Amino acid sequence: MPLDPKRTVAELKELRALTGDANGAQRVAWTDTWLKAREWFVGKLADLPVEHHYDAAGNNWVTLPGASPKALLIGGHLDSVPNGGWLDGALNLLAALEVLRRIHDEFHGRPPISIRVVDWADEEGARFGRSLLGSSAFAGNATVAADRVRTDRDGVRMDEALRRCGVDMDRFPEAAREQNNAAAYIELHIEQGPILERMGLPLAVVLGTKGVERHTITFHGQEAHSGSTPMSARRDALAACAKLALEIRAIAGKHADAVCTMGSVKTFPGIVTAVVGRCEATLDQRDLDPVVLATMFREAREASARFAREERCTVEWSRIWNIEPIAFNPTMLDLCDQAIREVAGQPHHMPSGPLHDAAEVSRAGIPTVMMFVQSLGGISHNKVEDTNQDHLELAVRAFDRLASKVISSL
Amino acid sequence: MPLDPKRTVAELKELRALTGDANGAQRVAWTDTWLKAREWFVGKLADLPVEHHYDAAGNNWVTLPGASPKALLIGGHLDSVPNGGWLDGALNLLAALEVLRRIHDEFHGRPPISIRVVDWADEEGARFGRSLLGSSAFAGNATVAADRVRTDRDGVRMDEALRRCGVDMDRFPEAAREQNNAAAYIELHIEQGPILERMGLPLAVVLGTKGVERHTITFHGQEAHSGSTPMSARRDALAACAKLALEIRAIAGKHADAVCTMGSVKTFPGIVTAVVGRCEATLDQRDLDPVVLATMFREAREASARFAREERCTVEWSRIWNIEPIAFNPTMLDLCDQAIREVAGQPHHMPSGPLHDAAEVSRAGIPTVMMFVQSLGGISHNKVEDTNQDHLELAVRAFDRLASKVISSL
Repeated sequence: MPLDPKRTVAELKELRALTGDANGAQRVAWTDTWLKAREWFVGKLADLPVEHHYDAAGNNWVTLPGASPKALLIGGHLDSVPNGGWLDGALNLLAALEVLRRIHDEFHGRPPISIRVVDWADEEGARFGRSLLGSSAFAGNATVAADRVRTDRDGVRMDEALRRCGVDMDRFPEAAREQNNAAAYIELHIEQGPILERMGLPLAVVLGTKGVERHTITFHGQEAHSGSTPMSARRDALAACAKLALEIRAIAGKHADAVCTMGSVKTFPGIVTAVVGRCEATLDQRDLDPVVLATMFREAREASARFAREERCTVEWSRIWNIEPIAFNPTMLDLCDQAIREVAGQPHHMPSGPLHDAAEVSRAGIPTVMMFVQSLGGISHNKVEDTNQDHLELAVRAFDRLASKVISSL
Repeated sequence: MPLDPKRTVAELKELRALTGDANGAQRVAWTDTWLKAREWFVGKLADLPVEHHYDAAGNNWVTLPGASPKALLIGGHLDSVPNGGWLDGALNLLAALEVLRRIHDEFHGRPPISIRVVDWADEEGARFGRSLLGSSAFAGNATVAADRVRTDRDGVRMDEALRRCGVDMDRFPEAAREQNNAAAYIELHIEQGPILERMGLPLAVVLGTKGVERHTITFHGQEAHSGSTPMSARRDALAACAKLALEIRAIAGKHADAVCTMGSVKTFPGIVTAVVGRCEATLDQRDLDPVVLATMFREAREASARFAREERCTVEWSRIWNIEPIAFNPTMLDLCDQAIREVAGQPHHMPSGPLHDAAEVSRAGIPTVMMFVQSLGGISHNKVEDTNQDHLELAVRAFDRLASKVISSL
């Protein structure tokens, strides 16, 4: 079948009708609705001479064998957050399917290299708080011991929920076998941010995924009576934290794509009649450049210490999580730039703030690139998540062009 | 008996041993421990020719009749917060008792005017969140309809708890009868703040109790992904709130004794990966001058609106509670100044940030003044609350001098 981007949009709507409700997409991994979505997807493969199987981590691999065992991997994920959007993950996978159909058609069922579409299991981590689950197992980065005892909000353990779906966490390492012959990986995704819309551009080359430094910062001052303690006698932990909440914007502002976010502040005792004795905040810092990320982290620490001194408080840092920046493959970036240029004109080049399965694939040493398509209002993980239909169709065409270029280059 | 300030300290320690534990004072109003403290106090009256009774609001009135029915009232409260200090309220009452003994001694049981010591019921409001309960009933400011349905943390209603102690809330208004013949009111209290300690002074004339404006302030911005939302595209409700947390210090700083406190900040959704979409803070502003208080309130509102605009957020204010400033009687202030001068040298003059029963008595139109004695470390409502013993003794002497001066002036 020749490429039909309108079919991709129609299939996305079909999936939405099947697995969404008035509050949005409900395809949370390891739930019945997700299994229904996967079953629906397998049904779409009936007319194609493909083999498909679930690997040891629950990733669904669809293979169209080529003349060479060398494989181009094209990925997406059917799982969503609760009350999620219709495009996040599903666009990726259905665009991959459409590209697979076109390649099958062009090469009469026998492309020069193998084409493998993969539906990653549990990209979102919505139920157990562990994102990129399936792709990390593929990449050899699974953390089974830590993850298996995670529980959902009903107290169900992760390993039990997976077993119910036929997945044995002890076998996760076997998923790395799927790396055999993998020569390149591409993934289409909605931007999930406002940048392309602001620039009036439909598509972007994704340079990589930003590294993340995520910390809890605790300022210790002195709880004191709000009525009897003069302003000059206070050791107000909130004041030190407020200075940092503002300073992180200057720290991020020195770098083009860097972001720093204070997402949570908690005050103790947290009552109207007491000066804040202890203030706990979270800080999330991201950039694609490891030097920038390290600089921002150092500057935030130094600023927090300075503000603590100014307010006669002390400050402690505790790391929640971090990941290094992952830069995609230069050759693949170049092919993505060309594909967008040929189909849609000038591409934007940008890092991804959110993580994606492509980051895990790239960590496994497989040449990787992603393409972004504009999001409306920068909103994602929400039922109002949307992209103009002409941009969706353009994205499928440009993504298909990218696949052709990668096949030719291998 | 002649004045014996050491006896006051000994009695305070006796009370502490009887009604405190390793965590501090446990004389929460309407509990068995509080009733035990009151019974202990009544036992101290045995050697004096006084009448005592509980009024309709549970205040305990101890009267030494004088040649004139005109009365000097001297007050304190035996109730404490949970895990409270040994001095807050109890010093007041036991100093009043010592002064009563001295007056009885000096005038051979028949002073020129009546002397009435009052143990106010439930000054702290620790169990039901309603402070100055007994004194407000005395002043005719009871709010029975609103208060009776208050519950403690075990779900016990306020009116039930009081009934168990023999107090019928429907009869609260009758407590105002105790105003008859009241000519003046004096009260000694620990400062509960660090000012006198910093100045190296033992005692202060209290000018009145500060008025309070207490509000919840909510900034509304836009929840957004911390990874995909550029700094320039954010509408960060926390940033607007952080600016206000710092600005209130400048607003208070223009006035000598004013205080502004942001005691609580809550962030929503309050997760590490999201820009804060909504931020709720509390603001407590206090000053003795109603013009200053009104100015600070207006300036904080204007600043919040300005910061909301700068951050492309909106802001709402909701009043939690307010009370007007209460200035004590000028003649009484003067007598207090003289008493301190004669006993301890230079007095400091300062407003009280915390409220006290004296505020309610003053609102009833009775000439009132309070005296403060230095607190160590500015700490109160805590087991470590303390005052140097020589300062306690000095305070009892100065307070007794004040009583003499007031009696002479009436």
